[in-house]
Amino acid sequence: MRKPPVDLIKRALEEDGADYDITTLSTVPAEQLANASLIARQEGVAAGLTIAAATFRLLDERVTIDLLVADGEQVHPDQLLAHLSGPARSILSAERVALNFLGHLSGIATITAHCVQAVAGTRTRILDTRKTTPGLRHLEKEAVLLGGGQNHRFGLSDGVLIKVNHIKAAGGIAQAITAARRAAQHLLKIEVECETISEVRTALEANADVILLDNMDIETMRSAVELARRDAPGVLLEASGNIGANPRRLAAVAATGVDFISLGALTHSAPNFDISLEFA
Amino acid sequence: MRKPPVDLIKRALEEDGADYDITTLSTVPAEQLANASLIARQEGVAAGLTIAAATFRLLDERVTIDLLVADGEQVHPDQLLAHLSGPARSILSAERVALNFLGHLSGIATITAHCVQAVAGTRTRILDTRKTTPGLRHLEKEAVLLGGGQNHRFGLSDGVLIKVNHIKAAGGIAQAITAARRAAQHLLKIEVECETISEVRTALEANADVILLDNMDIETMRSAVELARRDAPGVLLEASGNIGANPRRLAAVAATGVDFISLGALTHSAPNFDISLEFA
Amino acid sequence: MRKPPVDLIKRALEEDGADYDITTLSTVPAEQLANASLIARQEGVAAGLTIAAATFRLLDERVTIDLLVADGEQVHPDQLLAHLSGPARSILSAERVALNFLGHLSGIATITAHCVQAVAGTRTRILDTRKTTPGLRHLEKEAVLLGGGQNHRFGLSDGVLIKVNHIKAAGGIAQAITAARRAAQHLLKIEVECETISEVRTALEANADVILLDNMDIETMRSAVELARRDAPGVLLEASGNIGANPRRLAAVAATGVDFISLGALTHSAPNFDISLEFA
Amino acid sequence: MRKPPVDLIKRALEEDGADYDITTLSTVPAEQLANASLIARQEGVAAGLTIAAATFRLLDERVTIDLLVADGEQVHPDQLLAHLSGPARSILSAERVALNFLGHLSGIATITAHCVQAVAGTRTRILDTRKTTPGLRHLEKEAVLLGGGQNHRFGLSDGVLIKVNHIKAAGGIAQAITAARRAAQHLLKIEVECETISEVRTALEANADVILLDNMDIETMRSAVELARRDAPGVLLEASGNIGANPRRLAAVAATGVDFISLGALTHSAPNFDISLEFA
Amino acid sequence: MRKPPVDLIKRALEEDGADYDITTLSTVPAEQLANASLIARQEGVAAGLTIAAATFRLLDERVTIDLLVADGEQVHPDQLLAHLSGPARSILSAERVALNFLGHLSGIATITAHCVQAVAGTRTRILDTRKTTPGLRHLEKEAVLLGGGQNHRFGLSDGVLIKVNHIKAAGGIAQAITAARRAAQHLLKIEVECETISEVRTALEANADVILLDNMDIETMRSAVELARRDAPGVLLEASGNIGANPRRLAAVAATGVDFISLGALTHSAPNFDISLEFA
Amino acid sequence: MRKPPVDLIKRALEEDGADYDITTLSTVPAEQLANASLIARQEGVAAGLTIAAATFRLLDERVTIDLLVADGEQVHPDQLLAHLSGPARSILSAERVALNFLGHLSGIATITAHCVQAVAGTRTRILDTRKTTPGLRHLEKEAVLLGGGQNHRFGLSDGVLIKVNHIKAAGGIAQAITAARRAAQHLLKIEVECETISEVRTALEANADVILLDNMDIETMRSAVELARRDAPGVLLEASGNIGANPRRLAAVAATGVDFISLGALTHSAPNFDISLEFA
Repeated sequence: MRKPPVDLIKRALEEDGADYDITTLSTVPAEQLANASLIARQEGVAAGLTIAAATFRLLDERVTIDLLVADGEQVHPDQLLAHLSGPARSILSAERVALNFLGHLSGIATITAHCVQAVAGTRTRILDTRKTTPGLRHLEKEAVLLGGGQNHRFGLSDGVLIKVNHIKAAGGIAQAITAARRAAQHLLKIEVECETISEVRTALEANADVILLDNMDIETMRSAVELARRDAPGVLLEASGNIGANPRRLAAVAATGVDFISLGALTHSAPNFDISLEFA
Repeated sequence: MRKPPVDLIKRALEEDGADYDITTLSTVPAEQLANASLIARQEGVAAGLTIAAATFRLLDERVTIDLLVADGEQVHPDQLLAHLSGPARSILSAERVALNFLGHLSGIATITAHCVQAVAGTRTRILDTRKTTPGLRHLEKEAVLLGGGQNHRFGLSDGVLIKVNHIKAAGGIAQAITAARRAAQHLLKIEVECETISEVRTALEANADVILLDNMDIETMRSAVELARRDAPGVLLEASGNIGANPRRLAAVAATGVDFISLGALTHSAPNFDISLEFA
Repeated sequence: MRKPPVDLIKRALEEDGADYDITTLSTVPAEQLANASLIARQEGVAAGLTIAAATFRLLDERVTIDLLVADGEQVHPDQLLAHLSGPARSILSAERVALNFLGHLSGIATITAHCVQAVAGTRTRILDTRKTTPGLRHLEKEAVLLGGGQNHRFGLSDGVLIKVNHIKAAGGIAQAITAARRAAQHLLKIEVECETISEVRTALEANADVILLDNMDIETMRSAVELARRDAPGVLLEASGNIGANPRRLAAVAATGVDFISLGALTHSAPNFDISLEFA
Repeated sequence: MRKPPVDLIKRALEEDGADYDITTLSTVPAEQLANASLIARQEGVAAGLTIAAATFRLLDERVTIDLLVADGEQVHPDQLLAHLSGPARSILSAERVALNFLGHLSGIATITAHCVQAVAGTRTRILDTRKTTPGLRHLEKEAVLLGGGQNHRFGLSDGVLIKVNHIKAAGGIAQAITAARRAAQHLLKIEVECETISEVRTALEANADVILLDNMDIETMRSAVELARRDAPGVLLEASGNIGANPRRLAAVAATGVDFISLGALTHSAPNFDISLEFA
Repeated sequence: MRKPPVDLIKRALEEDGADYDITTLSTVPAEQLANASLIARQEGVAAGLTIAAATFRLLDERVTIDLLVADGEQVHPDQLLAHLSGPARSILSAERVALNFLGHLSGIATITAHCVQAVAGTRTRILDTRKTTPGLRHLEKEAVLLGGGQNHRFGLSDGVLIKVNHIKAAGGIAQAITAARRAAQHLLKIEVECETISEVRTALEANADVILLDNMDIETMRSAVELARRDAPGVLLEASGNIGANPRRLAAVAATGVDFISLGALTHSAPNFDISLEFA
Repeated sequence: MRKPPVDLIKRALEEDGADYDITTLSTVPAEQLANASLIARQEGVAAGLTIAAATFRLLDERVTIDLLVADGEQVHPDQLLAHLSGPARSILSAERVALNFLGHLSGIATITAHCVQAVAGTRTRILDTRKTTPGLRHLEKEAVLLGGGQNHRFGLSDGVLIKVNHIKAAGGIAQAITAARRAAQHLLKIEVECETISEVRTALEANADVILLDNMDIETMRSAVELARRDAPGVLLEASGNIGANPRRLAAVAATGVDFISLGALTHSAPNFDISLEFA
């Protein structure tokens, strides 16, 4: 795990005006201590607990938090996730930001786990995409890992994925692959997006390392997989486009034998996960 | 409208590695120009178009964007939202960040519009909450306005909302209101969270300016409204808790006569709105 | 109290070159320890002691500071305010920045206390304004609280105060109030600036929550207060304009029965308060 | 002149919430244009006009400002200092921050000019000190120049000034001078604080380049000047301590023949200079 | 090319005090214009010209620069590289920072070109390493490209290179490769450092994608190349360790048939390239 | 010594992706502890050890480092410089950044020590220049001190050095000196660059405090020294231009009796110093 994103948490606390919570400052005595609990209100996978803990402590280092569950664990309705104790003011003032992180990230981990479950028993792994919330990519991709998914490239500067417009500009699939191979550092594989069997064939001939099967129907996908496995057994295959977090659809795609399914919905449409903070 | 959040957009472009898009740099010639369109793929309310425009221009000020639709307008599947023209490399490298803003914010505006529609014809207005994505509160609250909703306080330092824990700490509703009124600057009203009719009565007697009816059933809510309208006609009433973006439920709550319904779901669970960028 | 403004203190230390104090580095041995005292040189109200303490510790966390007086306490000439001990170099290098905060903020608290004293025994409270030193508003408004004053809105985004130019642009007092009420979040009151009795009357009819009596003579102010108390007992009244930190003038204004007097001089013209640091 | 301090101005605008001025946004139409004037309300020296101009333009680059007076010029009550024209909203929202800079800096330039006037006709020049407002040293020292004063060292890292505690720590005046000369880069002169004639003599023998006559009475100061002029004609002499911005006292000190008088009051106690912004 | 690193250039100008160049401000009139030239004083490859140009313009946008040579071109003693014209003050105050960038980066491009020349006609390409100057990696790696070299991975988060300590910790070469393959995103190849033929054999059996031949003598390197070419023709080979920018040594290593030689000396020991700025 | 440059170190760690070292995270268990040593691989002067220590601790404060050698000490091949212990992952992930600082700064200290050695026994001291790596001036100038050299002015705002272009613009050497003396604060000496004996004579007559003998041959330099010592014994003399880190040349220049030799090569062309980190 990376360290908690201190700057982002501080920005979030500042955004919420947490260091000048008028209501709390005027109604809660400075010296009052409190015990509180973080409690899951639904079934799913916890994510963001270490960040929530860091949030309370960044507002006030006198708050202590006991995590009863680790990020990535399956949790149940009414399960205690953590105990907090410390100055009541600080717990109240940091509560919303902490819960905003927790709800968002546990939501992503939970939907990822559902998708991973849908393809269990196959070779297919669930990948995220770059369709993330601006400023939160690190956290969201980590939540995908916690849900059992796997990360695609982080961004444009650390992976090569040749899409239709790149192919057009380069003058063809083979030219695009050659150009990318020359420019990219030697530790990077070259992935190419293909929409037809014929494009897959061209990409294989041009020694693509990975092929993205984009928006193909199940039948075409299956042919593509067969072709690749026969002609280029080391090549990896990724399915994408209009798949969504639908278990039946995911199972059908996985059954074609692709190595990966990538899903924007993991990060851009995961519903908030319900967690509450209760004072003892 | 506020100005586009330059720092946030820059962080998002940097997060995506947009200034070093290996694929594009190696396959698309530096001098190649392109025309492209932003196209809605579903029905809803557009939001984030000015931010998307700023995103392209922050990466490369030579990109020009013609917005054909204003933020806040209703859009339809396959409707053109904007034309872009400029260096092909820059359009490709900024595309994902621009779409990430657009999809997220239009999603929020769209779900807000559905909720507003559900209470149309009543006095009730739809409010957002502080349950926003860390770092994006300004944008998300503006998307709520674009969808026809109204904003609650921005954060803890610019509004008073006394909740159960504050009441406990202060020793009662009346004490909490008095303490808050003394501490808050004189331009702020005092809102108090109540869960029972008896609490509403106490709050009214203590001269609360606004009452939050929390987690009440419809019947209780209706009694609370009646009580308040009779005894304190200037007091505002807000319903909250377990309501969700469900039209029928929203209509039922609005029918009680509350002034506001506040909904976390507007900002924390809005599904992404589908928009694509196509090259001409 | 908010936490000390770490970024501002660091900028001030950097501005002063405190981490490379040539004189001290060359003349004072690294290992030399020192005891020192902060001593008031005049009568007044201390403010900024916690910030001064933070300044020494941000330069060198080995410096320990015992505050003998709390921010907000009345102090006398030659009174010891704090004991310091630690590396002599660090105490010397942070001294000027710490004293600059102390002198400025204690100056504000002291002049505020004089003004509060001048209206003692009346209902009138002393308010600050937005006429603060750029970058120091939080600290200066806190010093006003420490001196017994009360804060007006913090800035333009967290309070509504309709002035002459707004009224002109909106087409009248009533129109301006309506427009502001629609746009502002529901927890904000609406304040309107009035220069004549006739304007006060219009503002009351338009349900203003607070009225700023601007640049009125005592007679007019008294009539305005009478009018408001009779027609709209819940409305708050603030006097402002050309009042200054003059005790007799303040008492006369308070005698009209206004709720508040706001004074730019508290923050923009308070003379420095004399405090010195002496080595034992 | 340095360039306007863009970061500081932006922080000040942000501090004031100038990009979300609820009152103005709700009452003034977006398209409304306005003409306005900056007008002096008292006699003195203008400073901060270029910063005020930058403030309006940083909020909205469509605002144009014509400066009718340059920073450093003497101005009179009711004199027009600048014309502004542009979007009414932006002029209103930036007004307070612009005036806060103007009032503070013109106040410093004005008090400096008074002190310079008091020593006119002598060799003595008026110096500022490091007793400045945290974060504003550059601006305040520039205002001193505009008022006709001269700057002392900027901070601890770019000048050597040996004070009593340094002398104690180094074991004597001569030892302190030697140590400082060895450590400082060769372009720096060495200044030493002396409180008695005997200390002045020792400092001269140790080849100090500049001597600070601290808290001396006029008689002693005169003796110190005579001694130095006779024994070390190239050495510079600075008077400091308890002098204040009092014309008679300044003239008396200048009459002793010192090269400089340094005054904390220039920057830490200058009253605000009254300037107003009026709409046409 | 990436855009010029604006923040870094600004920090460098600030570090040099370029906005307050006392000498220039006091001796050169504000209105004086000047023409100047950048002139190479030695043979080599130019790099950093666009950054130098940006440096002048960031200090003062009125300076215009005509680049007569592009970054990456071979230049000769006394060759004109660029013409500048604009305010004399700004050219003088930005000169040193601009030349510091130019000298450092052209030095790197020049030594890289020498190394590339030494292996010309072979399949071997010259790579840089992560042995760069803190804060300048982007620029230094771009200078390597300009000199005809190729970049290795940018940093630890965007490439996998398993070294001896990783192998020990993982329990062997095969285990380390498997672990890395599982964790890294699917677009990354796996490189392993080997010191003996036996390790190379193990790495090939474990399906390493790239092998780093570390500190091997020429004989061993040749055997390693033979082994790899025979058993795993797709695998890439990189030589490293104690090679240095010595032409004869580079030619000998290239003659073994490795794909890459990586050299820390390109970036950490390149002597400054001599360029001067002359006023017309 | 200043404190370690925390922001720069953090930027360097971030630049290297040290908080997401894929290789280490996947191959080294989180709980594995390690002992390691920093070892010199050549003869020279250590510099940057405290910065290297801070680097490891900024990545992970659980790493402990025992420095066996202080910055500024002479070290020998295979000498242990420090012991490290702590989480193996953190030591591996911070290693490269720490070594990059160490190698660069020890390289500067070592070449400086060679130059200082070359003029040992004379009055001449070795000075650095402003020809430093952008962003690293503080560190590089400190490394020069550690190698026994002395610092010239830090930047343009804290020292006066009048060069040919300033003299031309001011209308002559005397005019330039007068102008600079008037503008600079009174603690600064005035240095003037001279290329001929006649210019030196003029500068002495104009009361320059320091004279830079630029690009003179040994004979002319000697005459300049004689002239200055005779006519103005307090004036300091600095030799510069085309001298380089050549011991024989340095000795010859020192023999002329100049006070200083300044050398760009100390900071812009020092070869990296070889230090390695070995696991126990």
